[in-house]
Amino acid sequence: MAVRGPRKDSPRLTARGAATRERIVATAADLMFRQGVTATTLDQVVDACGISKSQLYHYFPDKEALITEVIAMREHRMVSFHKPQLDQVRSMRDLERWRDSLVTGHRESDEPYRCPIGALANELSCRCDDARQSLAAVFRKWQGLLADGLARMRESGELDPGADPGELAVAVIAALQGGYLLAETMQDERPFAVALDMALDHVKAHVRTPVANLTRSDN
Amino acid sequence: MAVRGPRKDSPRLTARGAATRERIVATAADLMFRQGVTATTLDQVVDACGISKSQLYHYFPDKEALITEVIAMREHRMVSFHKPQLDQVRSMRDLERWRDSLVTGHRESDEPYRCPIGALANELSCRCDDARQSLAAVFRKWQGLLADGLARMRESGELDPGADPGELAVAVIAALQGGYLLAETMQDERPFAVALDMALDHVKAHVRTPVANLTRSDN
Repeated sequence: MAVRGPRKDSPRLTARGAATRERIVATAADLMFRQGVTATTLDQVVDACGISKSQLYHYFPDKEALITEVIAMREHRMVSFHKPQLDQVRSMRDLERWRDSLVTGHRESDEPYRCPIGALANELSCRCDDARQSLAAVFRKWQGLLADGLARMRESGELDPGADPGELAVAVIAALQGGYLLAETMQDERPFAVALDMALDHVKAHVRTPVANLTRSDN
Repeated sequence: MAVRGPRKDSPRLTARGAATRERIVATAADLMFRQGVTATTLDQVVDACGISKSQLYHYFPDKEALITEVIAMREHRMVSFHKPQLDQVRSMRDLERWRDSLVTGHRESDEPYRCPIGALANELSCRCDDARQSLAAVFRKWQGLLADGLARMRESGELDPGADPGELAVAVIAALQGGYLLAETMQDERPFAVALDMALDHVKAHVRTPVANLTRSDN
């Protein structure tokens, strides 16, 4: 019953076909975000898309193939959202602007405090190693965008030469993920802001302190 | 078909009945931990327990009732594990011992880096408000155990009078949860240790600095 459909890069896909395929992925991603991956059935996806099940199978041989594309779409959206801001990070102030955009963005949107990538990782890492590896790569990419900004801060002398951009980035993304989970569970934005503030304070602890400031209290 | 079974505190439950009920909850908790809540079917639970489905229905009218008890069991285990250690916290050194026991405990066990409570919260918060509220209460209890220790550190003068034990506890649990998620996804303990170190550094930033240390560099 499950017919292997054309790959994304297949020349057999018309513009209309590509649009339908994209719509299926976006619909599945949204359903999986709102109710979980396992709780989302292919029947729900076809109903929400207004297509037939055979149309779905034309593009995706099975749910796993669809999940693979949902992860790829989430990675693409994460990069589209974070890269433009993180590529600008050259100072603590830039990093604070990124933090503010996350907190304010959620406050102004109807979206729940829930990281689409974190939610996929939590549900899939324990039982699908292919998905786990893909999601680990997404986290590494996210950390890399942040680490590049922190490395620029170190090069410019804002951060101590001993600061480790890679390790700081891991800590910041961990705080972000934990903040999302607590905020969603408690339906309260405070844990999200508190966790991000801790992460930024952690980076700030590596800001080079001018010698003048250290001795000022004794003058 | 779903017959409402006796409640936990029902006098109708014999010692043997209570033991069977407990075994069902522990088995369901383990399956849900390893593969997720939605992915765990009642058929899998009865198979793993070696009981009949009607026996299961005798104790639990439906999956939701079983999930409620799984959450209660996870809360009980969290308190049993963390309370003895967190009740001893009176100094930074005590907090570091707690951190070390978490990192070492995972290193020496076969358990995946996965918080049973965080995993339940991630999967259930978005689609079951009763479960979300129960899990929010578990997180609050966990934060409370930690906040009590931090309050003792503040009372003894180790932490600044301005330190907020409740807010610090939220930050530490967020770091713990994010660390678990990254460690599980990357199959690497480092993000877990890095996140916990950030959290403890965050608490340490509120340790009262003796005046002598501040001025030592100028002597």
